[in-house]
Amino acid sequence: MNGSTALLTDRYELTMLDAALASGRAFRKTVFELFPRRLPDGRRYGVLAGVGRMLDAVEAFRFEASELDYLTTAKIISPDLAAWLADYRFTGSMWGYGEGEVYFPNAPLLIVEGTFAEACVLETLLLSIYNYDSAVAAAASRMTLMAGDRPCIEMGARRAHERAAVAASRAAYIAGFAASSNLEAGRTYGVPTAGTAAHSFTLLHGSEEEAFRAQLATQGKGTTLLVDTYDVEAAVRTAVELAGPELGAVRIDSGDLADQAVEVRALLDSLGATKTRIIVTSDLDEYQIAALRGAPVDGYGVGTSLVTGSGAPTCSMVYKIVARADSDAADATLEPVQKRSPNKATIGGRKYALRRRNARGIAEADVIGIGRPPVDDGDDRALLVPLIDAGRIVGREPLSAARARHAASRAELPRAAHKMSRGDAAIPTIIDPEVQP
Amino acid sequence: MNGSTALLTDRYELTMLDAALASGRAFRKTVFELFPRRLPDGRRYGVLAGVGRMLDAVEAFRFEASELDYLTTAKIISPDLAAWLADYRFTGSMWGYGEGEVYFPNAPLLIVEGTFAEACVLETLLLSIYNYDSAVAAAASRMTLMAGDRPCIEMGARRAHERAAVAASRAAYIAGFAASSNLEAGRTYGVPTAGTAAHSFTLLHGSEEEAFRAQLATQGKGTTLLVDTYDVEAAVRTAVELAGPELGAVRIDSGDLADQAVEVRALLDSLGATKTRIIVTSDLDEYQIAALRGAPVDGYGVGTSLVTGSGAPTCSMVYKIVARADSDAADATLEPVQKRSPNKATIGGRKYALRRRNARGIAEADVIGIGRPPVDDGDDRALLVPLIDAGRIVGREPLSAARARHAASRAELPRAAHKMSRGDAAIPTIIDPEVQP
Repeated sequence: MNGSTALLTDRYELTMLDAALASGRAFRKTVFELFPRRLPDGRRYGVLAGVGRMLDAVEAFRFEASELDYLTTAKIISPDLAAWLADYRFTGSMWGYGEGEVYFPNAPLLIVEGTFAEACVLETLLLSIYNYDSAVAAAASRMTLMAGDRPCIEMGARRAHERAAVAASRAAYIAGFAASSNLEAGRTYGVPTAGTAAHSFTLLHGSEEEAFRAQLATQGKGTTLLVDTYDVEAAVRTAVELAGPELGAVRIDSGDLADQAVEVRALLDSLGATKTRIIVTSDLDEYQIAALRGAPVDGYGVGTSLVTGSGAPTCSMVYKIVARADSDAADATLEPVQKRSPNKATIGGRKYALRRRNARGIAEADVIGIGRPPVDDGDDRALLVPLIDAGRIVGREPLSAARARHAASRAELPRAAHKMSRGDAAIPTIIDPEVQP
Repeated sequence: MNGSTALLTDRYELTMLDAALASGRAFRKTVFELFPRRLPDGRRYGVLAGVGRMLDAVEAFRFEASELDYLTTAKIISPDLAAWLADYRFTGSMWGYGEGEVYFPNAPLLIVEGTFAEACVLETLLLSIYNYDSAVAAAASRMTLMAGDRPCIEMGARRAHERAAVAASRAAYIAGFAASSNLEAGRTYGVPTAGTAAHSFTLLHGSEEEAFRAQLATQGKGTTLLVDTYDVEAAVRTAVELAGPELGAVRIDSGDLADQAVEVRALLDSLGATKTRIIVTSDLDEYQIAALRGAPVDGYGVGTSLVTGSGAPTCSMVYKIVARADSDAADATLEPVQKRSPNKATIGGRKYALRRRNARGIAEADVIGIGRPPVDDGDDRALLVPLIDAGRIVGREPLSAARARHAASRAELPRAAHKMSRGDAAIPTIIDPEVQP
C-alpha cells in the first residue's frame, strides 16, 4: 500500500473535473459544505471525529506517477487533467467544527472554500473519514456516559476492517475511552493500549494454574487473569492462591455478567482480594453497560458494538456545493446555489454556527445562518474553527485537545441528552429563516 | 502509513506470547480455527471474502525497526520477544474455504497450523479481514441475487472508512457487482470502475443545459446524465435534446424511484431514446432492489447498505485454538483442546468440511468432522483448499476465480436460500457426533 490518499476517491469526481476543465468552469471559486442530514434514529446527539485524520489525508492527497499511470492507462482521465492533477495540492481554506464537538442535524461541520476543481475532488475522502470516525465516536460517547467513572477499553479491532479499527480506536479515545487493545492506534496516535491474555493461552498450557503462573511471572501480580475458560469459581480461587491479594484484575468474558460479577466480587472479598478489580467483556454496548451500573464491575471491554457504531455504522453526512462565483474574475461575487431534489434539498451560502447557552452554561439551541453571526450576548459559543488557511494546515492539535473538547461539549448538554432511550435531538437547530430551503 | 501489518494486532497477542516464551510453551505445535458462530439473524447463507487480502496481509506481517522501537519503548514486550519478532514470518500452513464460497454456522473457514507463537499472533489481523470483507460480500450477494441480470454498481466509499471502502469494493465484485466507483479498488484489484457526475457539477454551471453539454463534450453521448437536480422531466427533455437517442443513460437519485422510472421510461421512449438506460441510486438495499424488479430500471447504484453489510456490519467469526501438541517433540501428538465457557464452547481438533449435494447437484448439507473425511459417493464437494504450505503462499488466485466460485456456490443452493425474508440457514450443518462439544 502506498501513502497517497488520492485514489480513495469516487471516479465521478475526476470525470466531473475533466468536463469542468473543458467547459472552463473548473477554476471558478466555490464553497462546499459537509453536513449531516440527520442523526441516527432516536439518537440525541452526534459527535464529530476524524478532523485530525482528515487534515493528514488532505496533505497526502497527491497524484504521483503511480496514480497518474493508472488513471491514464485505464483512460479514466484526459491528458489535460493528468497534467493538472500532477501538481495538485489543496490551496483553499477550510473551517469546521472542532474534533470531539457534539453536533446536531444540518450542522455545517466542514466548510471548504476553493476552486471547484480542488474542492470537488476531495469529496469522497472527506466524507469517508468524517462518516466513519463520527459513527464510532457517537457510539463511544454513549458508552462512556453510561460507564461513568468506570473505564471503557476498546477491543473491537477484530470486528472491523483492519485499518478502520485504528481509526475507531482513535475516535473512541476522543469520546472518553480509557484505552484500546489496538497497537497501531498506540503507535500512530498515542492511544494508551491494554491487554493481557485470551482463552487460547490457558488452553495452550496443561492447566489453568500453569497458565496463570506463566502470565504472573512475566506480567506481574498487577495483571488481569481471564477466569472463564473452564469454571469461574475454581479459576478465581486459583488466581488468588497464586497472586495473592495484589492480583490486579480478573476478566469475565461469557455468561450472565451481572450475576457473575456479584458472585466473583463476594468470592474475591472472601479470599482477601478486596482490591482486585473485575473487568467484563462479551458483546457489551451502551445498554448493557447501563444495565451493569448496579453490578460490582470495575471496567468494560467493548468490541463489536463500538466499531460498528452500535447500530449506526455510518453517519448521513453529505458534501454539497452551496455557493459559487458568478464569474472567473478574482473579485467575483459568491452566489448561493441549491438543488431541489425531493427530501434532499440543500441550503445555499457560506454558514456560521453558534451554540447558544443559558446563564448556567447549558446549551439551548444551535443557530445556523449565512453571513455575519448575530451579536453575541456573551453566552454564545462559536462552533467553527479554522483548519486550513490558504493551503496551510492550521487546525492540528493533540488528541488530548479533542478529548477535552468532547468532554466539555457533552457536559454542556441538557440532561435529556444523557438518556439512552430513543428521542429527538437534545437541542433544536435554529436556521435563520431567510436561508430556509 | 507504512506497509507493515504487524501492529494491526491486539496487545494481548503479544503479552500472551511473552508469557508463553517464559513458560516454554511458545513453540509447541498448535492448530487454530477461524469459524463463524452464527449467521446474522434471519440470513440464509454467508459468503466468505477476504482470502486474497489475508494472504497479502500475512506476507506483510513483519516487525521492522519502527514496529519494534514502539513496542520496546512503550514497554509492551520483553527484549526476548523483540528479538524473536524481528525474524517473524509465518512458517506454518493454512487451509480454508476458497474465496467467494457460501458458508454456514460453525464452518471451519480457516485452519492455521503452526507453533502457538506464530499462529496466535495473527489472530486479530485474520479476523479483521475475514469479518469485514465477508459482511460486505454477504450483503452484496443478496443484492445481486435480487438484481438478476441488471448490473449493480458499488458506490459506498463515502460511507465507510476510506481503506475499508476499497476492501468493500473488492468484496462486492466477488459477490457479483459489475463495477465500483472506487478508484483505488480499480488500481489495486482491477475492479472495473464507473461514475460520471454529481449534482455539484450541474450547480457549478449556469444551467442544466450548460452542464449536460459540458459532460457530453468530454464523455461522449454514451455517458450517464444526472436528471434530478431541479425537475426530472425538464432534465430528461434537455438531455435527449442535446445527446439524441444515443444517450447512454440517465440517473435518478431521489424521490420515489419506481414511479419515476416508469415516467422517465415513457418520456425517453416518447422522445425516441428507447435504448437510453435508467440507473437508480439513493439508499438502495436488497429489499429496495427486489421492490424495483417490476420497474423499468436498468441498473442499481448501491452505497451505504452495501459497505455496512445491510444491517450486519461484521460477522461473528472467532479464532480459537482447537489442538496442541502434547510435548515439544517433533513427532508429538496433536491433542484436541476446547473451552467450556457458556454459549461459547469450541470443538477441538483439526476439521474437514464437505458440501453434500443431491444427484441434481443441489446442496443438501455441510458435513464437518475431525480426521479423515467419509468416503465420497461422488456428490460431495471438499470445501477446504490449501492456502499456505509451510510458509509458502499457494492459494493466490485472480479475483475472477473468486467471483466465479461465488456464482457457482450460490447457484448450488436450494431455492429457499434465494428468499430475502428471514429464515434459517439454507442447509443444515452436520457435525460428526463424536466431536460435538
